[in-house]
Amino acid sequence: MTDRFDHFEVNDVRFPTSRTLDGSDAMNTAPDYSAAYLVAHTTGGEAGHGFVFTIGRGNEVAATAIRAVEPLVVGLGVDDVLSDMGGFWKRLTHDSQLRWLGPEKGVMHMAIGAVVNAIWDLYARRQRQPLWKLLADLTPGQVVELVDFRHLSDVLSPEEAQEILTRAAPGKQERERRLLADGYPAYNTSAGWLGYSDEKVLDLVGAALSQGFSHLKLKVGADIERDAGRLKLVRDLVGPDIKLSIDANQVWDVGEAITDIARLSPFGLYWVEEPTSPDDIMGHARIARAIAPVRVATGEHVANRVVFKQMLASNAVGVCQIDACRVGGVNENVAILLLAAKFGVPVCPHAGGVGLCEIVQHLSMFDYVALSGSTEGRWIEFVDHLHEHFVDPVQVVNGRYLAPTRPGAGTEMRPESVSDFAFPTGRAWQELSYTV
Amino acid sequence: MTDRFDHFEVNDVRFPTSRTLDGSDAMNTAPDYSAAYLVAHTTGGEAGHGFVFTIGRGNEVAATAIRAVEPLVVGLGVDDVLSDMGGFWKRLTHDSQLRWLGPEKGVMHMAIGAVVNAIWDLYARRQRQPLWKLLADLTPGQVVELVDFRHLSDVLSPEEAQEILTRAAPGKQERERRLLADGYPAYNTSAGWLGYSDEKVLDLVGAALSQGFSHLKLKVGADIERDAGRLKLVRDLVGPDIKLSIDANQVWDVGEAITDIARLSPFGLYWVEEPTSPDDIMGHARIARAIAPVRVATGEHVANRVVFKQMLASNAVGVCQIDACRVGGVNENVAILLLAAKFGVPVCPHAGGVGLCEIVQHLSMFDYVALSGSTEGRWIEFVDHLHEHFVDPVQVVNGRYLAPTRPGAGTEMRPESVSDFAFPTGRAWQELSYTV
Repeated sequence: MTDRFDHFEVNDVRFPTSRTLDGSDAMNTAPDYSAAYLVAHTTGGEAGHGFVFTIGRGNEVAATAIRAVEPLVVGLGVDDVLSDMGGFWKRLTHDSQLRWLGPEKGVMHMAIGAVVNAIWDLYARRQRQPLWKLLADLTPGQVVELVDFRHLSDVLSPEEAQEILTRAAPGKQERERRLLADGYPAYNTSAGWLGYSDEKVLDLVGAALSQGFSHLKLKVGADIERDAGRLKLVRDLVGPDIKLSIDANQVWDVGEAITDIARLSPFGLYWVEEPTSPDDIMGHARIARAIAPVRVATGEHVANRVVFKQMLASNAVGVCQIDACRVGGVNENVAILLLAAKFGVPVCPHAGGVGLCEIVQHLSMFDYVALSGSTEGRWIEFVDHLHEHFVDPVQVVNGRYLAPTRPGAGTEMRPESVSDFAFPTGRAWQELSYTV
Repeated sequence: MTDRFDHFEVNDVRFPTSRTLDGSDAMNTAPDYSAAYLVAHTTGGEAGHGFVFTIGRGNEVAATAIRAVEPLVVGLGVDDVLSDMGGFWKRLTHDSQLRWLGPEKGVMHMAIGAVVNAIWDLYARRQRQPLWKLLADLTPGQVVELVDFRHLSDVLSPEEAQEILTRAAPGKQERERRLLADGYPAYNTSAGWLGYSDEKVLDLVGAALSQGFSHLKLKVGADIERDAGRLKLVRDLVGPDIKLSIDANQVWDVGEAITDIARLSPFGLYWVEEPTSPDDIMGHARIARAIAPVRVATGEHVANRVVFKQMLASNAVGVCQIDACRVGGVNENVAILLLAAKFGVPVCPHAGGVGLCEIVQHLSMFDYVALSGSTEGRWIEFVDHLHEHFVDPVQVVNGRYLAPTRPGAGTEMRPESVSDFAFPTGRAWQELSYTV
């Protein structure tokens, strides 16, 4: 009998991170890192895992959105889906009724991304490969078939994508060998949360240096003089050779961004992340011209490949920050990686939160082996939070992500974490309700 | 005792319009017009009505999103909210956790729009005025306070907004008198749905002409030769003086749009609506340059004021199509009206669906009386569907919307419609399930 998709199991899982201000920044002042967590089950007993990452309130909306996708998937043959992942992506994204709720943006699109990622996780498990390896072993033609070129073709055609991939093919084996031996560079954000005291930041910066990181990121944007003071303290501690980037999390308007970045530039900035609204392509382009050679970075809140297309084509970003769980999953991120490769812009993924490191590392590793061919000027974000809740947590050693070797996309949460942090009924939330 | 917001009543209401292909177009092939319908109740027994418009599947996601906003509103004093609607908008839109689900786009933003619109409905009822009149009677300073200038200030400052409104103030009384006497121009889309036969379209075009419409819109984009054939039939029927616009509902890529519009231009096009992705500002600008003097129109799927800002500042649109239920409600639409006024671009709202005509007419009438000061080159979309489900349905006579005079925003649905079309338990859906 043909294996089919049988049902979705969806959980609202939340971690009370706002109690310690882990993850705090100028826009996201008190996040409770959360996941609308999906296990997609087949009739044959296989399962794939994916999630929407949120920061607390509204996680139930994302869970409802995942459930809205379930009827489009249940009943489909597993082999049919896995042999045409590009077609599967289109089936979900172009559903004529669900599409109205975006289109291709916001909660509904993130939910589709979670479903797509879950099916890729299942696919990689079935192939007994980590996701990065499954993707890297596809032929250029197979990669092109994953991508929806609708609304991209004025800037990137299937033929050009095929050329880019074909050009990158030589050296794949050698790069895979080096990836397995040396891992992939990481940068560290754990030290620089806005809600931490200067003392705590300096302690954590010291710890990050001793762990081998050579690129650190600090949150800014609440108070420019406090930002300048903290940056000076950190630069004095780390010396001139450590790369320092800053992240304003969208709080500035365009003019304000240019003024404030000028105030902070003397401390030596590598990139400035999310200087303004993630929807403001023209604003990012203006900021990029004003602050060069400091780079503008954005992407964790960029809604889809059409916005990335414009950001890249207009030189609005010098660093392209994909997020595994914002756009429509693996397929759309492959499109964005292709766009970045076309424009020669390095991809440095957004990670942290809960589970974002675990999944997004696969995309950067695929990018290195099969597409960009380089780790130069590229780092995956690393934040040392909540990895213990995953069955196959990332391993970051001496400032580098070790290439995962276990089958799957890294997206499986430990069952006890899912039950303990279920919101609001799980043990962790019940205990907190006694102590508030 | 102070009146406070007490609770939200949220209903999933769907109309089985896909059975007749009413509303069908190249992208939205079989919509079931739906509303996630909110009644916001106060402790004093007042109520305000608002909704997210969807086209069927996923309407429950919008309902869940409205419920996610409820805890931010319940308990607030009604007077406090009504006396600071700008602050209320920011409280919802900038909630640091819910914001992650957009930011300011998609389901979560549409839900916030529904809540904001419901409170405006309540406000207008309390003032015993139709919404357009309540808005038109605000001073320029009060209007400016409604707007969130975050991420707008590089293009529009509060001071400039105040100047634009102040310049428009002379003649308000005379325009209000003319609006009440003559109504506001409408254009008609009821004739041109893609799923209708040519015969049905021609019959309906004839009917629209006899009802006094001088501007009609046809759906295109499924098959360019069929589009050309239908346009020729319609142009031959209506003669050279009737304005014909077309709507591709986003199905074209940029290059394809330019080619296909060139094929259709000989039939005399007033505007081309949604030629490509609503996120593609640069693509719209390129199409606009290529097809001039034919105008590009878009907006019903433009996510927020930041995208409108760029569309307007880059001459990507010659017709600005606000939608009452896509962005964050009245407040954000006031921001968009101000941006359009700054750039001298006429606003022609998207309407139709269910309830969109009822609410959006208030925004155009406010625009006429207090802001743009003109109805030249401006029409509100009219589609003659589903008005019977509203307590205060629009009245369109001789091709013009009559100005509503009853208090409120026009958003209240008839209780029997809410119960009959409740999905999936209402009478209408139960009966359909027997006949399928």
